[in-house]
Amino acid sequence: MTPTLAELGEAELLKRLARFAPPGQLDDDTACLGADPRPLLVNTDVLVDGIHFSDATTDAHDVGWRAVAANLSDLAASGAVSIDGITVALVAPGTTPWSWVEGVYNGISAALQQHGGTVLGGDCSSGVSRLLSVTALGRLGPLQLLRSTAQPGDVLVSSGPHGLSRLGLALLQNDPQLQATCLNASLQSQAISQHQRPRPRLDALHQLLSCKPAHLPWRAGGTDSSDGLLTAVRGLCSSSGTGARLDRKLLPKAHGWPDGDPWERWCLAGGEDFELILSLPAAWADALEQALPGCQRFGRITNNAGSVIWSDDNSPIMDEGFNHFAQG
Amino acid sequence: MTPTLAELGEAELLKRLARFAPPGQLDDDTACLGADPRPLLVNTDVLVDGIHFSDATTDAHDVGWRAVAANLSDLAASGAVSIDGITVALVAPGTTPWSWVEGVYNGISAALQQHGGTVLGGDCSSGVSRLLSVTALGRLGPLQLLRSTAQPGDVLVSSGPHGLSRLGLALLQNDPQLQATCLNASLQSQAISQHQRPRPRLDALHQLLSCKPAHLPWRAGGTDSSDGLLTAVRGLCSSSGTGARLDRKLLPKAHGWPDGDPWERWCLAGGEDFELILSLPAAWADALEQALPGCQRFGRITNNAGSVIWSDDNSPIMDEGFNHFAQG
Repeated sequence: MTPTLAELGEAELLKRLARFAPPGQLDDDTACLGADPRPLLVNTDVLVDGIHFSDATTDAHDVGWRAVAANLSDLAASGAVSIDGITVALVAPGTTPWSWVEGVYNGISAALQQHGGTVLGGDCSSGVSRLLSVTALGRLGPLQLLRSTAQPGDVLVSSGPHGLSRLGLALLQNDPQLQATCLNASLQSQAISQHQRPRPRLDALHQLLSCKPAHLPWRAGGTDSSDGLLTAVRGLCSSSGTGARLDRKLLPKAHGWPDGDPWERWCLAGGEDFELILSLPAAWADALEQALPGCQRFGRITNNAGSVIWSDDNSPIMDEGFNHFAQG
Repeated sequence: MTPTLAELGEAELLKRLARFAPPGQLDDDTACLGADPRPLLVNTDVLVDGIHFSDATTDAHDVGWRAVAANLSDLAASGAVSIDGITVALVAPGTTPWSWVEGVYNGISAALQQHGGTVLGGDCSSGVSRLLSVTALGRLGPLQLLRSTAQPGDVLVSSGPHGLSRLGLALLQNDPQLQATCLNASLQSQAISQHQRPRPRLDALHQLLSCKPAHLPWRAGGTDSSDGLLTAVRGLCSSSGTGARLDRKLLPKAHGWPDGDPWERWCLAGGEDFELILSLPAAWADALEQALPGCQRFGRITNNAGSVIWSDDNSPIMDEGFNHFAQG
């Protein structure tokens, strides 16, 4: 019997689909095309109603904004210094009000206005539920960030705190897990804004490029944390044949972030934070910490392939991976 | 009150969405990026279960094949002489068997193997129904085919017959409209194959490029007929501010195609035939008829903006446009 997608799980599905592409082609956040004068980076992300957004927590404007932000985040995490634009495939039932579609496109326009690029084209169709599939195109700068180019001895650096998007969702859903905890108002508004209007960190990439110590070559590992901090670290390790030691006290958390459960779990695996997770030579990591407020070193790449452990007691870090297909 | 998408209809929806892109950006089958050395063409098409395919008439392999063919047809109709590859967004319920997904990707691979390009990347997600959103990237040759570059006096040429895909669907569905008609076996198998494994006419584009009379500049109008022959002609006319006169006796029909209803209607508006509809100077049309077996001249571009008429009696040709959103 052939397994269902829910039985396979997302990771195994992606592994099987990778066999239909050239070897290594699907290892990274984006595909890279052409050589001269500036290689093109391409990325596709799909947002599905009920999975990636819902009317209860995401208005139309934010759906459009997030579809663009998720794609541009992948481009930033691959080294894109400019954005050409996007194509948009929109599927929605015929009963969908035009005002919703207009809101989505207003959100798309707002995100493009802020980060560059235009709507290049697209397609639309009716369908039983709403979804957006966005493909973004951008141009590579001097540094191609790959998962496979992390090296033992590198410092792991995050461009910003993690768990905020997950907290924002919990706040919007009145999650009972929050009832016992007192959160300051600034953390709450930061979390909701991170969930509804995440920023692709093209700004962080620019800082990274401009602060490289002159004696170092253009080599760094990188990915974004759209699937969570831990998944990003594991992706760097598995593509580069390395391991990682994370410092529990240095996890990239927002100011005022509580301790204990679910807070550490949300920081490690909440997902949708869209920060850059970089693997850098120590001197470059030092320079970036000076140049980019809010960035945080939180561990080291090791030569112990596949081992992702806490540095204080060498214990393995539990996997909190999420299988989208288990729901359907 | 805001209208629903069904109330708006597809044409009005596309018109409203075009306001979110630069002026003219969404007029053509593809977007064109960059200038040197070879401009990039980009296109996105979405295929939705129950709208563009169904288990009853399209097996998994053919779903993948058609998703690629539809995209590459748009690239061919814009002047792409080579294909870089595609990104694929796949949405399916968790209950979907892996064998279906594998079949889709086998179909994708088969189409790419035949026409060039690789799977560059993509995304997948669960969702309540199956769909594929494919973005294809290719390189422009010496001639950019635009809808807006048709000119009065041009000859309208089709790269092949129309209505076959619609007939193929009717055959697969045992459509009662077919009961009164005797069809030869060759026409039947041609129709089913056109419906299940349509060919993007990259070959026809190559013939067009290689037969241009030396004294003519690189200028022609063009689009593909994925939405039907008549819609393609109307698209050329509206983007170029022209009209058209079609010769009823020269409509591009397959050998053995019956007369009367629904046959003429299917030829004009059946859709999904993926042929090139070209607007060419007469000498170039002559050369193409010599070079490309099966191609057919069927009318002329006129300066009577927006008027699409039969040449024998000057009567307007009825619109058989299809509104995808009316169903949902």
